[in-house]
Amino acid sequence: MENNPLQLILNPRSIATVGAGNNPTKMGTIQALSIVKDGYPGKFYPLHPTEKEVFGFPAYKTAYDLPEPPDLVMFVLPAPLVVKIMEDFGKIGTKRAIVITAGFRETGVEGRQLEEQLKAVAARFGIRFLGPNCMGVINSDLPLNVTVCPLSGEPGLLGIASQSGTYITQTLPYLQDKGIRLAKAISVGNEGDLDLTDALDYLGSDQQCRAVALYIEGLKDVGRFLKVARRVTAQKPVVAQYVGGSDAGARAGSSHTGALAGPDNLYDGLFRQAGIIRVSTVEELYYHGWMLASQPPLKGKRIGVLTNSGGPGTAIAHTCNAGGLDVPPFSDNLQQEIRKHLPPHGAIGNPVDLTFHMDAEVISATLPDLILKSKEIDGLVIHGLMGTGFLKAIYPHVAELFGEMSAEEFTSHFERDLTKALSIPERYDLPVVVSSFFGREDNFTSAYRDRGIPVFDGPEKAAKAMLALYRYSLVRQRTADQKTVIPPVSARAQEIIGAAVHSGHRILDEYASKQILAAYGIPVCRELPARSINEAMEAASEIGYPLVLKGCSIDFAHKTGHGLVHLNLQDEIQLRSAYRKIGHAAGQEIPVLVAKMIKGERELMAGLTRHPAFGPAVLFGLGGVLAEALQDRTFRLAPLTSGDAFEMINEIKAAAIIGSYRGLPKVDLKVLASILQTVGNLGLLHPEIEAVDLNPVIISGADPVVVDALVVLNENVAAR
Amino acid sequence: MENNPLQLILNPRSIATVGAGNNPTKMGTIQALSIVKDGYPGKFYPLHPTEKEVFGFPAYKTAYDLPEPPDLVMFVLPAPLVVKIMEDFGKIGTKRAIVITAGFRETGVEGRQLEEQLKAVAARFGIRFLGPNCMGVINSDLPLNVTVCPLSGEPGLLGIASQSGTYITQTLPYLQDKGIRLAKAISVGNEGDLDLTDALDYLGSDQQCRAVALYIEGLKDVGRFLKVARRVTAQKPVVAQYVGGSDAGARAGSSHTGALAGPDNLYDGLFRQAGIIRVSTVEELYYHGWMLASQPPLKGKRIGVLTNSGGPGTAIAHTCNAGGLDVPPFSDNLQQEIRKHLPPHGAIGNPVDLTFHMDAEVISATLPDLILKSKEIDGLVIHGLMGTGFLKAIYPHVAELFGEMSAEEFTSHFERDLTKALSIPERYDLPVVVSSFFGREDNFTSAYRDRGIPVFDGPEKAAKAMLALYRYSLVRQRTADQKTVIPPVSARAQEIIGAAVHSGHRILDEYASKQILAAYGIPVCRELPARSINEAMEAASEIGYPLVLKGCSIDFAHKTGHGLVHLNLQDEIQLRSAYRKIGHAAGQEIPVLVAKMIKGERELMAGLTRHPAFGPAVLFGLGGVLAEALQDRTFRLAPLTSGDAFEMINEIKAAAIIGSYRGLPKVDLKVLASILQTVGNLGLLHPEIEAVDLNPVIISGADPVVVDALVVLNENVAAR
Repeated sequence: MENNPLQLILNPRSIATVGAGNNPTKMGTIQALSIVKDGYPGKFYPLHPTEKEVFGFPAYKTAYDLPEPPDLVMFVLPAPLVVKIMEDFGKIGTKRAIVITAGFRETGVEGRQLEEQLKAVAARFGIRFLGPNCMGVINSDLPLNVTVCPLSGEPGLLGIASQSGTYITQTLPYLQDKGIRLAKAISVGNEGDLDLTDALDYLGSDQQCRAVALYIEGLKDVGRFLKVARRVTAQKPVVAQYVGGSDAGARAGSSHTGALAGPDNLYDGLFRQAGIIRVSTVEELYYHGWMLASQPPLKGKRIGVLTNSGGPGTAIAHTCNAGGLDVPPFSDNLQQEIRKHLPPHGAIGNPVDLTFHMDAEVISATLPDLILKSKEIDGLVIHGLMGTGFLKAIYPHVAELFGEMSAEEFTSHFERDLTKALSIPERYDLPVVVSSFFGREDNFTSAYRDRGIPVFDGPEKAAKAMLALYRYSLVRQRTADQKTVIPPVSARAQEIIGAAVHSGHRILDEYASKQILAAYGIPVCRELPARSINEAMEAASEIGYPLVLKGCSIDFAHKTGHGLVHLNLQDEIQLRSAYRKIGHAAGQEIPVLVAKMIKGERELMAGLTRHPAFGPAVLFGLGGVLAEALQDRTFRLAPLTSGDAFEMINEIKAAAIIGSYRGLPKVDLKVLASILQTVGNLGLLHPEIEAVDLNPVIISGADPVVVDALVVLNENVAAR
Repeated sequence: MENNPLQLILNPRSIATVGAGNNPTKMGTIQALSIVKDGYPGKFYPLHPTEKEVFGFPAYKTAYDLPEPPDLVMFVLPAPLVVKIMEDFGKIGTKRAIVITAGFRETGVEGRQLEEQLKAVAARFGIRFLGPNCMGVINSDLPLNVTVCPLSGEPGLLGIASQSGTYITQTLPYLQDKGIRLAKAISVGNEGDLDLTDALDYLGSDQQCRAVALYIEGLKDVGRFLKVARRVTAQKPVVAQYVGGSDAGARAGSSHTGALAGPDNLYDGLFRQAGIIRVSTVEELYYHGWMLASQPPLKGKRIGVLTNSGGPGTAIAHTCNAGGLDVPPFSDNLQQEIRKHLPPHGAIGNPVDLTFHMDAEVISATLPDLILKSKEIDGLVIHGLMGTGFLKAIYPHVAELFGEMSAEEFTSHFERDLTKALSIPERYDLPVVVSSFFGREDNFTSAYRDRGIPVFDGPEKAAKAMLALYRYSLVRQRTADQKTVIPPVSARAQEIIGAAVHSGHRILDEYASKQILAAYGIPVCRELPARSINEAMEAASEIGYPLVLKGCSIDFAHKTGHGLVHLNLQDEIQLRSAYRKIGHAAGQEIPVLVAKMIKGERELMAGLTRHPAFGPAVLFGLGGVLAEALQDRTFRLAPLTSGDAFEMINEIKAAAIIGSYRGLPKVDLKVLASILQTVGNLGLLHPEIEAVDLNPVIISGADPVVVDALVVLNENVAAR
């Protein structure tokens, strides 16, 4: 972290602002005010061309007039003016900047040029900067807030980095209402210099951040992100929302930060590989982030559910179960203990349902204490804490019966001392989350939120937050080998690729493709090429029947459709006949492949694909006739650890067929994992390779065998 | 509706309450107060053993003391007392009751007996009742509110019926805050008499309810529910949350209302069949219900997205796309019009992104007007309306710069007149939904919510609400035949079943099973039974090679594993060999089936299953080797319309293989649909049949052919 340029951006001893004056209807002014008003302890130097003072602080005309080079300069003035003044600051020795100003790359050609100039100037003077087109940063610990909205309350626990500034500005009042306290927040904007990965790196090392939330529309260097993310998730939870996989989503995202959007399923694989918990809404980003930041880890799968109503209890239990958690019945002992405090029609098993009642002591203190103390659960979800919110709601109706009592007297009359209730969760060091339909108008909601016990506005949301803890516990349990081993380049593979390049072919034929795979130890079906019927007969006697005969020419891409593939040939007669048919189908004698017939009821597929920003990524999925219809696939970035490969294998929907399945033996997992790792290595060792298909990989007995394959080189290579 | 007993329960001219006194800490008192305080216009007759007056109304000791038999009696007194007093009301001629009281079926054996007594008394006097263990009803139109929480605001548009009382009581303040106004609400409790289906029927016919929301933990008579729901969804949208498919969920649900929980996927099929929009959280139940109730229908798929920030815009566009809606780029003309109102770094394409700014006129009035008027979209999602909420948030920082201005002066200084903005949506009769992180502290949020324009707290939520409209538009577009035709019982099928029953067999052998299918016209592979090799040879010559030979005995359930199935026999030699192997595998000579070998790359499955409360349900899914691993299945309740059957076929994940697929012809859909309908009819015509499996149904060319089948009779029949 010491080396992370963000350390100084979030902890400067002095800040200069450029463009903020005393007009409070300007966004820049409001942002500069946040620095001053939210208690920034360092020096504040406003630059202004005309004003003598800004917010009572002496104003300086230029960087050269400053008493010292500030640690950080923040730009809020129009885009065309930024570059020149950045240069001034470079000259006086300032090394960090935040460029709030919009109107750069996101606006088109001219803006792009302006951004390049900005980057050039910064690079010349060694200035590291956030933005342009960003909303700034928050460091609740220092404190430092340069965003539009005020920061309030205690220093927080959640770190957040966002490619959309709104999620750390417009949402601050929303977050404060929910009791979600940010530790640090970083808006990365156009990522002209420092990017989301730098921010993750920084938040990952920051002691104050107990969890990290990321809003992502597109990463520029996925490999670097993965490396950093893996390191961070081994230490603390990271949740992320990725948006941009759809057409309109990508269009919206690119007009915003100009970042590169990528296919949704690649990001899905990336997050799994990195141990990042993916969420699908910004509410989940905040809620799950806060749950992970504020609560102790979930040490097991047993969840207790405590409610004052059957509906929410059912929903919580169901949501927990659906996500893999258990809601086990309590022991007889514990049930008897609980029974003492419930009306006869209450339920004691788990979920515990007190049913509707007005005394909150039982649900907020007595029962949580009993249940947490029991050691029968690893986490607790409560629905039905309600005090002043409910009292205020019914006051208009009951007022008359309470005589002259005012609304305030009425609510305070029934208001409980929550000291005991609030202290219970921390006493047992187990995660607790509350669901309530009451907001801050209710004293329970307010007090719990202020105490750092999450209160979310719906039973399913509370349960899903508990599931986020569970998902992180699974990340921490990843035990498989996480090292990557990349073999040396195979001379044989290089030679085959070279030959293709030389002959101007982008697509390698099936034999050449499989030879490359074989050169790296991937099991391919035994096969020999032949250019005549005699060669084919010779090959057949070497390999032995039953055989497959295929036309092997890159001119015929979809072989099956052309009558160029003949399966399960039993003898010479059938071989000869098949050879003739291939010649007939192709309209001429073409090279053939004589291959061992591989049988197996299970067909898988693997492959290599490149996507801009991603580098080589490995695909694994269901193969065979259903592959296209079901698209049951998962991705990982190369290089793959064996852990990555095993996770891929277990992750497809059809994963059950990999094990002992309908009388078939368990697939040799080591070989299958090794195939996936090797496919990834191919992409790293041979940058000429654009894509690889291994489809199908038939499971013969327990053994994966590649039966068909295709290697495609990239356009530039083939054009050489 | 005239005949629906709920009509009078929600519109009584007089109500008696039993058990409510003047003690305002009792729930019963508070519920009775809601009647009086929320403006019920009819007569109110409190019964009380000791009080002279209740809430100033004269109290009566018994039913016999009342000046008239009330239309409705509401019980809030302890369970053991209810039956006797219900009888009193029966004697004086009251015909409707609400039993709020808990402590009946949900508590065990004694409670169950008590509930039976209650039902018996009610039946004796023709009293129809809601409950016991319910939270009552709301009729915002009358008005009548018997729930714990006060009702406020204008009469609503959303009807709701719930198997959990909390969702129409504890949540009322929450709903009022969101601007979600209920038309009618019905808590059905234990459903001792009137149930959720009655409630749906009533809300469906009620003119005030423009959409219906259902919270379901289990239905008692699914067939009846389906019939009613189909009728309702043809007229107005219905959303439903079903919770109870998981173990703990079911446990929680059953301890609550004692209703029968069922497997999640059966409910999923039921909802699709009924045209009900399923949601997965109670928040969605309310949000989608309100969107459907308050907004005009979505007439196309084109959505406009208008924001002040890239992040939410991207999320909205992405969510719309993922759910099947388009976010098309605007025409050049419209883009140029929009450009006039935006800063240069704003985006004009769609999503439109104004970027962060303080003047709300553009985003709330100018642009919505331009976009809605353009006819280029069918619905609009807006994020970024913010006024006083934002102003209050920044006031502490900017106060000083505004001199002596108070917070109130400050916000009112910047507060806009929203009259124009608010009138725009209704002017164009297109659905509009707003996403905002600001709650009622913001004047936009408040004003829009009060005007019936939904404001939801997150961009994805607003987009999903728009998707709910889209889902309902698809329900309304269902054009396929929705009639069911059930053929007469086949004598041949009856005979086969009779023979099995006679011989004491519950499981029919493969031949007999397929004969039943064939009797109803389901295409099965051509086959003949044989009891010796000679018979087998004879059959073979009649059917013709290639053949399949299978041992056909109910003693060998999993045939493949036992070496009892031999595929693709080409000639007499192979047939003889296979016959010998079967005898060897079985340890004795057993009957065999000689069947035509059916080849096809596509394998499907169909079946019939019975689940308590459901009656016969039809399964359709992917067959073959992957069936077990992928569980790609969908369900419908019998009888199936051809529309149901076609929807099932299109609904499985592997649906792509049904069409022209990888060079294979399109499956004969009429035959496939007819198979599914017939399987359903089997269950209706033959109550003895417990389950049927058609697996696989191989697609031979374009034709579905049942290759293996199993019919299982129910235990009682077999035991006769």
